[in-house]
Formats: sequence, structure tokens, C-alpha cells
Amino acid sequence: MEYTPTRDRYTYTFGGAAPVMRVRPGTVLRLWSDDAFGGALRSVDDLSSAKVDLRFVNPQTGPFHVEGAEPGDTLALHLVSLEPARDWGASAAIPFFGGMTGTDRVVTLQDPLPDTTWIYELDRERHTVAFSARHSDHRIELPVEPMLGTVGLAPAGGEVRSSLVPDRFGGNMDTPQMRAGSTVFLGVNVEGALFSVGDGHYRQGEGEACGTAVEGAMTTTLIVDLVKGRAPGWPRIEDDDHWMTVGSSRPMEDSWRIANAELVRWVAELHGLHPMDAYQLCSQVAEVPVANVVDANYSVVVKVAKALLPAADAYDAIHADLRQRARSL
Amino acid sequence: MEYTPTRDRYTYTFGGAAPVMRVRPGTVLRLWSDDAFGGALRSVDDLSSAKVDLRFVNPQTGPFHVEGAEPGDTLALHLVSLEPARDWGASAAIPFFGGMTGTDRVVTLQDPLPDTTWIYELDRERHTVAFSARHSDHRIELPVEPMLGTVGLAPAGGEVRSSLVPDRFGGNMDTPQMRAGSTVFLGVNVEGALFSVGDGHYRQGEGEACGTAVEGAMTTTLIVDLVKGRAPGWPRIEDDDHWMTVGSSRPMEDSWRIANAELVRWVAELHGLHPMDAYQLCSQVAEVPVANVVDANYSVVVKVAKALLPAADAYDAIHADLRQRARSL
Amino acid sequence: MEYTPTRDRYTYTFGGAAPVMRVRPGTVLRLWSDDAFGGALRSVDDLSSAKVDLRFVNPQTGPFHVEGAEPGDTLALHLVSLEPARDWGASAAIPFFGGMTGTDRVVTLQDPLPDTTWIYELDRERHTVAFSARHSDHRIELPVEPMLGTVGLAPAGGEVRSSLVPDRFGGNMDTPQMRAGSTVFLGVNVEGALFSVGDGHYRQGEGEACGTAVEGAMTTTLIVDLVKGRAPGWPRIEDDDHWMTVGSSRPMEDSWRIANAELVRWVAELHGLHPMDAYQLCSQVAEVPVANVVDANYSVVVKVAKALLPAADAYDAIHADLRQRARSL
Amino acid sequence: MEYTPTRDRYTYTFGGAAPVMRVRPGTVLRLWSDDAFGGALRSVDDLSSAKVDLRFVNPQTGPFHVEGAEPGDTLALHLVSLEPARDWGASAAIPFFGGMTGTDRVVTLQDPLPDTTWIYELDRERHTVAFSARHSDHRIELPVEPMLGTVGLAPAGGEVRSSLVPDRFGGNMDTPQMRAGSTVFLGVNVEGALFSVGDGHYRQGEGEACGTAVEGAMTTTLIVDLVKGRAPGWPRIEDDDHWMTVGSSRPMEDSWRIANAELVRWVAELHGLHPMDAYQLCSQVAEVPVANVVDANYSVVVKVAKALLPAADAYDAIHADLRQRARSL
Repeated sequence: MEYTPTRDRYTYTFGGAAPVMRVRPGTVLRLWSDDAFGGALRSVDDLSSAKVDLRFVNPQTGPFHVEGAEPGDTLALHLVSLEPARDWGASAAIPFFGGMTGTDRVVTLQDPLPDTTWIYELDRERHTVAFSARHSDHRIELPVEPMLGTVGLAPAGGEVRSSLVPDRFGGNMDTPQMRAGSTVFLGVNVEGALFSVGDGHYRQGEGEACGTAVEGAMTTTLIVDLVKGRAPGWPRIEDDDHWMTVGSSRPMEDSWRIANAELVRWVAELHGLHPMDAYQLCSQVAEVPVANVVDANYSVVVKVAKALLPAADAYDAIHADLRQRARSL
Repeated sequence: MEYTPTRDRYTYTFGGAAPVMRVRPGTVLRLWSDDAFGGALRSVDDLSSAKVDLRFVNPQTGPFHVEGAEPGDTLALHLVSLEPARDWGASAAIPFFGGMTGTDRVVTLQDPLPDTTWIYELDRERHTVAFSARHSDHRIELPVEPMLGTVGLAPAGGEVRSSLVPDRFGGNMDTPQMRAGSTVFLGVNVEGALFSVGDGHYRQGEGEACGTAVEGAMTTTLIVDLVKGRAPGWPRIEDDDHWMTVGSSRPMEDSWRIANAELVRWVAELHGLHPMDAYQLCSQVAEVPVANVVDANYSVVVKVAKALLPAADAYDAIHADLRQRARSL
Repeated sequence: MEYTPTRDRYTYTFGGAAPVMRVRPGTVLRLWSDDAFGGALRSVDDLSSAKVDLRFVNPQTGPFHVEGAEPGDTLALHLVSLEPARDWGASAAIPFFGGMTGTDRVVTLQDPLPDTTWIYELDRERHTVAFSARHSDHRIELPVEPMLGTVGLAPAGGEVRSSLVPDRFGGNMDTPQMRAGSTVFLGVNVEGALFSVGDGHYRQGEGEACGTAVEGAMTTTLIVDLVKGRAPGWPRIEDDDHWMTVGSSRPMEDSWRIANAELVRWVAELHGLHPMDAYQLCSQVAEVPVANVVDANYSVVVKVAKALLPAADAYDAIHADLRQRARSL
Repeated sequence: MEYTPTRDRYTYTFGGAAPVMRVRPGTVLRLWSDDAFGGALRSVDDLSSAKVDLRFVNPQTGPFHVEGAEPGDTLALHLVSLEPARDWGASAAIPFFGGMTGTDRVVTLQDPLPDTTWIYELDRERHTVAFSARHSDHRIELPVEPMLGTVGLAPAGGEVRSSLVPDRFGGNMDTPQMRAGSTVFLGVNVEGALFSVGDGHYRQGEGEACGTAVEGAMTTTLIVDLVKGRAPGWPRIEDDDHWMTVGSSRPMEDSWRIANAELVRWVAELHGLHPMDAYQLCSQVAEVPVANVVDANYSVVVKVAKALLPAADAYDAIHADLRQRARSL
């Protein structure tokens, strides 16, 4: 099934929007999503102060109603492929937004950094995007490493959150781990789960320091699946090599605490370890790549290489099964 | 030159101790350092509450007075090799210490986690340490990946800091990046620099969640060198593959801000980029592996792969030169 | 106009609920609100783990649609009187909730504090509530100082937030400053403003350390008014003696930065001061009573005594006018 | 005993300096201390960027060796009187220092706020200092409310800390509660305690937002006393009306947690309450005036009015005794 939203079907929240489609577990979706700016930054002369309203960024493709999904279930989304859908990406230093500036939360009285836009040209053959300096002649080609900034579903308790927010429901986690080959597990809060995706990045550094990645429209192929019950407390990601969890809060140590506790719980479940032993073991094997330090909440990934631990299956080995299904597409 | 401190020569601070030796730039040192606990935890029955005083952990080997080092200079320490100096390492969940418990700063009224010690046996042939669960029969062999928790020098302004603290002077940064093959650059604050090393880890997960790594006595071979002037604001690390910076503060987003700003400055220097362009570029290429979330200050590493950027030399290519010298030892 | 919601009309969010009533600016409302627990804790044997669901606390009375209110306007609510509506209040140490315990954000692996409920008897003649220790015979009478924990309106950007959350839209600010005689100014985000109130406290310490105040059903008399345009960035409060602002975020220094910047802006407006002069002046005259360190966001009040500054009028002296109207009721 | 340090006897650290004098418990000291800037800012044309080195601010008068003081003891300092020792005070917005700007920890890439100095004239008859706006003609007289920014002693574990730092040893707590009539209790870490005072403020707002108060040279009369053993975990302050504790750390919620836990412990001790009951009681009666959000650590005061609790004596009623002795001077 394919779906490309018309602009009037863009949504800017998790929760609060009527589903655009009902899908059955097992469905393969091919989805087009616009970039974080809704395509508004197309040249270095397009400034974010003129063209971007931070209340309406990260337009979502969705939400999708998953048949049979009920609160307490686990939505599994397997990312089969992510393909840049335009020949350029855009990034910007938005005034009072990002990690190296005062913001609407880290309020200072200083002047903003200069509103600046960078355009990255995509070279599909070389699989690169080109950084072009704005203040000198530097041009540096960087590998394309497509990922999705936002994958989320409707929050609990009737909340509706901006698509700029990452939290327990997933959302704008902005981690490079959200790439082809990954399966993300999200706890379902409402009937139908109501998940959506968007905010494609042609590449992003960990931390997403300036507040924006190489933002680009994306064509995402994913498989939707459902595990009854067993909702994780916070988003979990599995790929062929790692078990991963994502915490999103403030200050950043709280994001880490959330993700680390979730990983300790997961490792304990997978291997039948006592929590204190899982805590000790994770302390010696975890990797902690920061996702972003710029959004409404900061996101931190904690992960462990499968190769370091005994073999184990999560959620009845659904990731391996989805990988298999993906290969056969 | 070799140096193994007797127990009465252990020091527990950066600054505040008389040098144990004077060394010239270019000197190769072979240093033995005790583990973080001063060797006090040798079986699972040795509990930290009985045997460890947190005011006196991470015994330092040093300090060393580097001839010619003056405030504003840059001390370069190249780690040639790190060899476990005992056949076992120890780790512990120390009451009210670590990342998943209330502490003396994150104060709660809850009971402590159970005081627990783990002993890891080293297998020198297999290059592994073995995790043995305390509450089940699990035994998991993990690769030995030796690193130093503490590398630091005397602080500025006449301060003396516990060897439990990481800050601008380096110290207890607890990052796995501090391993053989790395060159660390530290800004000199006092005549002679007065650096010391210690807190060897046979391996450590990023975050060092439980507060302690696989702590072990270590034999470290390093080359001391000096760059006149050009002191970095915060610790910088270079290895063959990455430019790295380390920020240590609280909350963790401040540690990240420090390290990220230092990396932006470094990349701007190395490549002649405008700060806004360096900010943008780093936003798309940085990796951010958290070092620890448990010490007096939290440490975050920000790094960028050399392969992604044009070729460049830092500090007159001293790292390449030190690597060459290391190979010829 | 009087309004007492039946239980099926309780709402648990800011935004996302249909208005219960339309009111004109100038209307006097007399409102009954249930306590934070929906009246579920009536004896020390009623434990929060059995009777309280944190997704559905702080039942709101409202929302009220204010005629003529449009985005960008300023809603002014003047609290005329707050009267305890029951003869007892309740407080609880809810497992994994509060300031001196690990929580769902400050995650630790420790056991929770013991789930404990305290009941405070109200003495209407003495104007006291009585603290009765649970572990000894201490009984201490404390003055009743009624306040509202939550006063908020619908958020911007289509968001819907739990009534446990304080933010830019007001909400669960949990400050003792929200008491009879205060006028609160909130920026309107949606047509009709859609404000609600709830979470009455018979008294509360600053910080609300254990997570709950002396929670009690409340009868609130307030006057609704509207200022066209001039929406403040964050909640402002005025009483006869102070100009006040409230910031709500995490970490707590960000809450303070928000509130302090808002106060600097307000003082600059009121007195025609340059922002740097207002910054300096506020630095020497501000008081900073923390509101709460326990909610989804932490709230900090920054205030300045009117007596320290030259006379000034905010919003066309509407507070003085409302005080006058209140006296004549 | 009187003591006015010559400039070469100024010290800039807690710990690390030889005592200037030995005093017996019970001694009355009359001490002159220079202002935070060492008197360098005397007109609005004296800019901090030219005249202030942040490594050497808050010159201390001391340290004083208290005879008989041993680790684990409690130093009691009773402030009898604080008298401005000059006819003017100075304040400054120091580049990259303060609460409403990026700093060396909250690093941003923005330009600094304009380096600005304000001079406050003291009127001894009217007991006022006069704020004179730098960008308009506003002149506002403010009451003189003298306090000491720094009161501290040598840290534990051989550490030496800058006089810019507040922590467990007291230090640069920058709270208006440190005023005449207060008794501060500090845990002794080294033989002789080695306390010092400085950083007089003619007045200061809570939060000390711009980073500096109305800084002024001060003549402080205090009584030194000693309680054997019973060292508090963190600084405690008692005056006629309040029990107070001070926490200093980062992020600010950790400062609050520290102070609140210390107050809960103190109230439990004073009244024989179970910790859970003391936690509950303090939750309903505490006041939380923020001290500063600008120093190396942020400081938060938690206090409770004696009038709300049953009568109690701390440290054998030494405060009442010191008040009595002060009156008889």
C-alpha cells in the first residue's frame, strides 16, 4: 500500500488527528513524507525566520489505524528502506533553536545566532550529500545515511503532543538508529495505535547540535506488525546487531536514566537475569550514543551489541521474521 | 622510565601533591597504577561499604612534573599500551553511588540498592574478562578493552580536586576512548603540569551506569610531550580515526555543550571554517558517546571521524609523530 | 454563576475537552472543584497505589469558553475567594512520585518509599488543618492557606496536556501564590481560551516536596476578564504587593530562566527600562520562591515587591479594578 | 579581635591557605572584607573584562584556625552585625557570566551581553543604595540589606576550591539569609576548621540573576563557636524565626534535593519524627527561596518557620546563647 499525503493532510501532532487509513498487521506500507520544514527551505536565501513556524514543523504522514491494536499491545514497525525523495536536503540555524544557543527554555538575553540556511545537494550515484560552507569555499561530500526523525503513536491519557516532541510514545527522537533494517517497538495507548512517521534526514550527527539535520523528503517502506500485550515502558529498537532503548526527557541525565533502566529490564527479561546482575552487565557493555540535545525533550539511546550476549529472541523473534519478509519484497 | 608507586605514594587528588618525578618532553614512561578501590575488593565477599572510602578512590600514579611546561601550554600524552596488571578485575554497586540510584547529589529517601561486588576473571589468552552473575549461574565472557578512567593534571586557580572528579583539567573522565593509540591534549595550568594517571578499566560500558567499570590494576606505557602555548579549553583526544573532545559538568546537557563547542572550535581551526559553518558541519557528522553519568561531574565525548573531513593536522601533526615513536619502542 | 461538575464532567486535560459553559468577560463564577485524587483518599487506609491513577488526577472544573477571546489575547482571572469545601484534606507519598524518590523520569532501581496517606482535619474556627504523624503521636495544627494547584487554558499548536503538567499555558503550577487576591494573566491560544481550575490545596509548602499538598475540594470564586492582545509569553500573576511570573520546565534552572526573563521583560515594559537595566535591577530585588519540584515540569516563581519599584500599572490597571469589583460582591 | 587583611593576604580558595590567625571558640571577631571584585570596579567606566579575573574573585578574609576543631565537629558562626565599609557598591554584567547568558558551562556560540557596570551609592542615613540606570534616567533607592556571599571552611578529602564555588563546605552560597542575626553551622573537615568570609553584598535579589549583587566591602562582627561532633551533612542556618538548610549543586533540582533532605533530617531530629512524617510535614510548611543560579554550583535554601512547629532546640540551644552574647557586646 502506498500513501502520499496532500499538503492538507499533513498532521503536526501525535494523537489528536483522525486516521488517514486503516491497516492490518503484516501490511507493507510505502510512504512519502515531506521534510521537517514542509519543503519551505529550498535555497540559502530561504530563511527560517521568514518561512518556518516552529508550531508546525515535522509534518507527519499518518496517522494509521492498526486493526486490532489495543492499549497495552506492542506496535512493531520494521523499516525496510528509506529513500531520499528529493535531490537536495536543507538545514538551518533557526534563531533561538538548537543546542548552541539560548532557546525558549534555556532563555538568555543574548542576540540570536545569525539565521542561516544550508542546502545539501544529493548525488544519488555517489550516495552523498554535499555540505557547502556559507562563509568560505569549502565543499565536503558526506555519505547519505537516511533515517527518520519521527516515528510515534498517540500518547496515553488523552494527550496530544507536537511532532517536535519525543517522549514515551516515541515521536521526534531524532536518532540515526531509526534507519532501514531497524524494528521499533512502541507501547500502544489507544485503540488502533495511530502511528505516523516523518522528518526524514539524509544524514544527522548524534546530538543534532544545530537543531536540524540534513532535512529531506523521504520515501519509507515499512512493515506494520502487532504483538498482543507486552508493551514496553519506552521505545525499544532492535536491528540485526543491537538491542536498543530510547529515553526522552530533560535534563539529559534523566533521558539516560530512562533508557538505561529500560535496557536493564529488557536484558533481564531476555536472559533471565536478576535486575542487579543485568544492571552490572549493562554497565560493562552498553553503548550510549546521544540522539538529540535540541528538541522539547532530549533523547538518548542506550544499546548493547547482540554479539556480546548469549543468543536471545525478543517478542517471539519478530525482528528476524520481519527481516525475512523484507528481503522477500 | 618505569614507576610503580608504593602505597604511601598513592595520591587522591589532581593538584595538591608534590611531584614524584621530573620528566622531559619526549620521555617514555611505563607506569603501574592500582585499581579504583586500591585493590580492596578481591572477592564477592569484599563489600564496598566495609572496604571503600569514596574520599579516597582512584589512587593516582604521579604527579609527574614535565620540564618546561608552563601555564597556557598543551600537554600531550600518547597512550602506547595498557596492559592488565592483575588476573582479575572488580566491580561493585556501591550504596548511594552510581547512575540508577539516589546519590549524595540526587538525594532521595529510599533505601540503597544492595551492596554487591562482582569479580571478573581475566583470561589472557582469550583476551576476555568473565562476568559471573551473583543471582544465577550466568557466565559471560567479554572482550578485554583496557582504558584509563583518570588522566589529569593540576587545576587552575590553585584548586585541588578529588580523583573522583572530571573537569576542565581532565581527571576522572571515564571514557573508553582513553585507550592505547590515543593522544590526549590537556591545557597546562601550573608550572610542570603535574599530571597523573590511574583508575584502569579492563572494560567499561559507555555511561558506566553502576558507577564502576571492570576495575583493574594497569601497566600503562605512555609518551609525554609538550606543545608550547595553544592550550585547549577542555580536553581533546586524537587517535588515528577521530578528533574528540570531552566535556564534564552537570547537568549532562552542559557537558555536551562544552564538548560540542570545543569540537566546533577545533574543526574550525583545523579547516579554516567560519564558526557557523563548523557548527553546521559538526551537526551532521558528530558522534556523541556518553562517557559517564555517575561521577561528581558527568562526562560526554563528542567526536568526528577524520575520514569524513578533509585531511588536517593538529598541533603540528604530533599525534602521527607519537604513533611513529610508539611503534619504534 | 455557579458550577459544580458531576463526576462524569470531570476533565483531566488542558485542551481537548468541549467547554462546559460560555461566559462573558466580567462574569463572576463560583466553582466547586474536587481534590487532586478525585476524593479517593478519605482515610489513612486508602492507599494511592490502590486508589489513584496518575493519568487521571487533578480533575478540572471547566473548561470555560470566554466569549471574544482569541489567540494573542490575555485572559485575566482574578481569584476572589477560595473556601475549603470539605472538612478534611489528604496528602500521600505516592510510590515513585515526588521529589525525594526516584520517579518515572528520575529512574532508579531502588524500592519505592512506603505508600503512605495522611489525613488533615480542618478546623474552620481556628482556620487550621491538623497534621497527624503516622509513626508517632505528633499532632501539629497548621494555618489554612487555600490555593489552587491548577489554573490553565488550552495549549497552542493543537496540543492537549495532562492536568498534571504545568507549562506555558499555566496548568499544574502548584504555587502558593495562586490564592485569593491574585490576578493571573495567561496568553490565549485558541478561540474562547478554554480555561479550567482545580487541584485545591488547603496549604502547601514551597517545592511540594512529597508530590502532594494538603489536597482538598475547593469552592473558588473568581472574576473572568479579557485583555485584547498583549499575551504574555508565560503566566504572570499580580497581587496587591507583587509582580510575579511563573516558569515551568526541566531542569529547574530552565524554569528559573524562563520566569526571570519574563519578569525582566515585564519590569522593562512597566517602567520603560532598557533590558540590561531591568536585568540588573531585577537581580537586586527579585524573590524566587520555588513552586514545585515534583510535577512533569518543575515550576519556579520570580517576583518583585511593588514597594521597591516606582508605581506602575499593568494591563491598564485591571488588577486594581478587579480588586474593587471583588470587594463589591 | 579585629582583622583587616592587606591585599597580599587575600585568599581565593577554601582550603589550601595557611591560617592568618588562631582563635578560641567563643571569640568575637571584627573582620573587614573587600568586595567580590577586590575593589576594582569604582565607576561605570571600569569594565569587568578589563579589571576582573574570574579565577581571583571573592577575596577571602581568613582562613581562621579554630582551636580544638576536629573533623566531624560542627563550627557555629554567629553573625552579629554586617556594616558596609564603603560608600558605594558595584555590580556588573560580566561577559559570559550570570544566569541570563551563555557561560563557560552553559556554552553557546552567541555573542556576550554588553559588558556593563553599575555603581550604587550608599546613603547611610536613609539606609539605601541607589540604582542608577545606564540607559535612561531612572534612579531607584533600595533598602540596604547587608549579607555575606561567602562563608566557608576547608573542604574534605584534601580538596581546595575556588572562592567562587559553593558546596558541602559552605562557600559562595550567595543567599540573603546569611545576614546579621543568623547562626550558620558547618561540618568541620580538617583540624582547625579553617573558615573564612567575604563577598559582602549591600543587597541581593534571590537568584542573583546577573551574576553579581550590590558588591561591597564589609565589616563583619561574628562570634566563633564550636560544637563537638554532630557535623551536619550540608550547611544549616538558624535565626530567631527559621530553621534553614542550603544545598549547592547542579542541576538546580539536585541543590533542592540536597537541602530538602537535610531539612527533613533536621526536623526529624529536632522533633523525634519518623523520616516519612518529617518528609510529609516539611512538604506542607517549607519555604524555598533560591539563593543563586549563577555560580559554579547553584544554591537553594529550604527553610521552615519555627512558629509553625513545636518549640525545639538545635545544638543545645547555642543560637539563643549566641544571640544573648551578641546583645551584650
